[in-house]
Amino acid sequence: MTITALSLGALLAAAAMETPPAPAAGPSGPLQQKLAPALARYTDDVLFGTVWPSPGLSPRDRSLIVISALIATNKPAQLTGHLNRALANGVTPVEASGVLTHLAFYAGWPNAVSALEVYDRVYTDRKIDVAALQAKVGRLADDDGFGRSAEAALAPTAPKFARLSEEVVFGDLWRRSDLSARDRALVTIAALTAMGEADQLAPYLRRGREAGLKPAEVTEAITHLAFYAGWPRATEALGSVARTLEAKP
Amino acid sequence: MTITALSLGALLAAAAMETPPAPAAGPSGPLQQKLAPALARYTDDVLFGTVWPSPGLSPRDRSLIVISALIATNKPAQLTGHLNRALANGVTPVEASGVLTHLAFYAGWPNAVSALEVYDRVYTDRKIDVAALQAKVGRLADDDGFGRSAEAALAPTAPKFARLSEEVVFGDLWRRSDLSARDRALVTIAALTAMGEADQLAPYLRRGREAGLKPAEVTEAITHLAFYAGWPRATEALGSVARTLEAKP
Amino acid sequence: MTITALSLGALLAAAAMETPPAPAAGPSGPLQQKLAPALARYTDDVLFGTVWPSPGLSPRDRSLIVISALIATNKPAQLTGHLNRALANGVTPVEASGVLTHLAFYAGWPNAVSALEVYDRVYTDRKIDVAALQAKVGRLADDDGFGRSAEAALAPTAPKFARLSEEVVFGDLWRRSDLSARDRALVTIAALTAMGEADQLAPYLRRGREAGLKPAEVTEAITHLAFYAGWPRATEALGSVARTLEAKP
Repeated sequence: MTITALSLGALLAAAAMETPPAPAAGPSGPLQQKLAPALARYTDDVLFGTVWPSPGLSPRDRSLIVISALIATNKPAQLTGHLNRALANGVTPVEASGVLTHLAFYAGWPNAVSALEVYDRVYTDRKIDVAALQAKVGRLADDDGFGRSAEAALAPTAPKFARLSEEVVFGDLWRRSDLSARDRALVTIAALTAMGEADQLAPYLRRGREAGLKPAEVTEAITHLAFYAGWPRATEALGSVARTLEAKP
Repeated sequence: MTITALSLGALLAAAAMETPPAPAAGPSGPLQQKLAPALARYTDDVLFGTVWPSPGLSPRDRSLIVISALIATNKPAQLTGHLNRALANGVTPVEASGVLTHLAFYAGWPNAVSALEVYDRVYTDRKIDVAALQAKVGRLADDDGFGRSAEAALAPTAPKFARLSEEVVFGDLWRRSDLSARDRALVTIAALTAMGEADQLAPYLRRGREAGLKPAEVTEAITHLAFYAGWPRATEALGSVARTLEAKP
Repeated sequence: MTITALSLGALLAAAAMETPPAPAAGPSGPLQQKLAPALARYTDDVLFGTVWPSPGLSPRDRSLIVISALIATNKPAQLTGHLNRALANGVTPVEASGVLTHLAFYAGWPNAVSALEVYDRVYTDRKIDVAALQAKVGRLADDDGFGRSAEAALAPTAPKFARLSEEVVFGDLWRRSDLSARDRALVTIAALTAMGEADQLAPYLRRGREAGLKPAEVTEAITHLAFYAGWPRATEALGSVARTLEAKP
């Protein structure tokens, strides 16, 4: 379902003028319908009616970026439902655990640790075989120089930080094969967007493109994240995307 | 009560040198008095003794911006008391629910959903008639072009985001009459300040001024929010206000 | 233990290729080992194996910045363990309470209030004599003009905010002797880094240096905080440090 020029605006305008329908079982749930019926309408008609089913990005990728944003902004309460949805949408447990490990570095250990308890409950409820998470993880080829410009530029000021970035983040974390380079870039873009770190997106936008992430997928992902991290964060991130695309030789 | 040139500094300086008084029932509460008596003093003398009663902004507006900041920064624990205070200070349940819906877009769905449980408890405790929340909401006249420059500029890069901004956020959400345009601007300014999105304040400052929000009210609101979102966020937001006022033709 | 050129990268590379060892009792804990073994490895080998024991900053100072970052980003769940660690590492209860009061201003009252319940539990568990927290606090000499440029520049736009900054924050809070000026600067730098307010670091970097905080300690602190607030926040903060050092006459 895509947004056509008239449909969404007309639908909303009509809905606003009419007596709301009796509360029904929808993604919005009874509390939204009782306390904020307009919010329920936006949830059902726009977010779940239009954005989630939109063909510009797979449900699996939408789930990947939503769990990334929820972990990066410390929303364990909402993560429960969305981690379940992610696993149902095709994110594997190995990938989901890879997201957690990745975001410990990008959003800080405390956010990852908070999410860990949600993972435990969801994996237990879904009877996921956690032994598979202990399997050996392969290593991707190193991608020389990727994304390291900012950190390398800091070497004179902060040599240990530059070393940790080089050896641990780029030399080890990014070379793990539990997430593809394309997914790792997408997860990072989602986290930076949600954290309000749009100024640091550029190297990851480039890394994603090299690894097969299409520009249209990136803008669709950030559009989706407007609903999970707020319009201002998406506006900033898309501004950064626009500048990066223009700067492309 | 306003701050006079000598009173506050002299009061604090004197207090710091003397034996603290026995803990008393104040807004600070027993935990602050026991574990951080200086914090209790700032809470009682400065925040509740000077800032809240200051005449530059009505108690109702102060409550409106505080619940906005608490929702936008995901502080459900503190929202309970402040939502009660807001309703006591004259924010209507329809307006409070309007804030929630508005901030789903500006601060993301998860923050609104977290706040929803607080709303349910507070509305239930206060025996608020939630049927009134289901009433039809009118539509304000469209204000051509307001605040859409940033989003419209993104149309070549992110056409769907520009469409959602135009049709849903500006064409629908901002035209709802559950919040006045003046209040909606104030709520947005509070949320952007608290989220650290000072760079995006300009169109909302202009929109607020057009809708009757006085510049002195805006600076008073951001000064108040320094206590709820931290000094650095207020400093940034006031810097943005200063630049926007200067840029005024 | 410092990072040598080969050890850490080689260790991690080797570990990634081998069957992981049986879960052992380490700082990572059983959940990380079960659900995200790579995260457990980074926790044990890098964060607690290399960063925490590194000689560039004392364990006491590392604890001081970690509790500051956790309070400033509202992580009460993780604060429990780290406040215990801080007290064990030599942060005194008076200092820890001073951090809380200080961060009410820098990160907002709600974050301080959330932390207060953690403090109460930890102080009670450790049988800390809270009567000592009620003792008179001395006053440091005023440091004319420090850090007030941003706030003073806002006086024409926001005179009350400039007054509160001058009289309460710089004229009172910063002159309290429960935290040394050096520690107060370090706590502020940690909070600004964790909050993503790198643009506001400069006056506090200067104030810290005047009070004896070495540039190498600052970069070591921010490197440590990369693990608690995320790589992007540390990258931004170190960029600000580099610019401030360059701007030094």
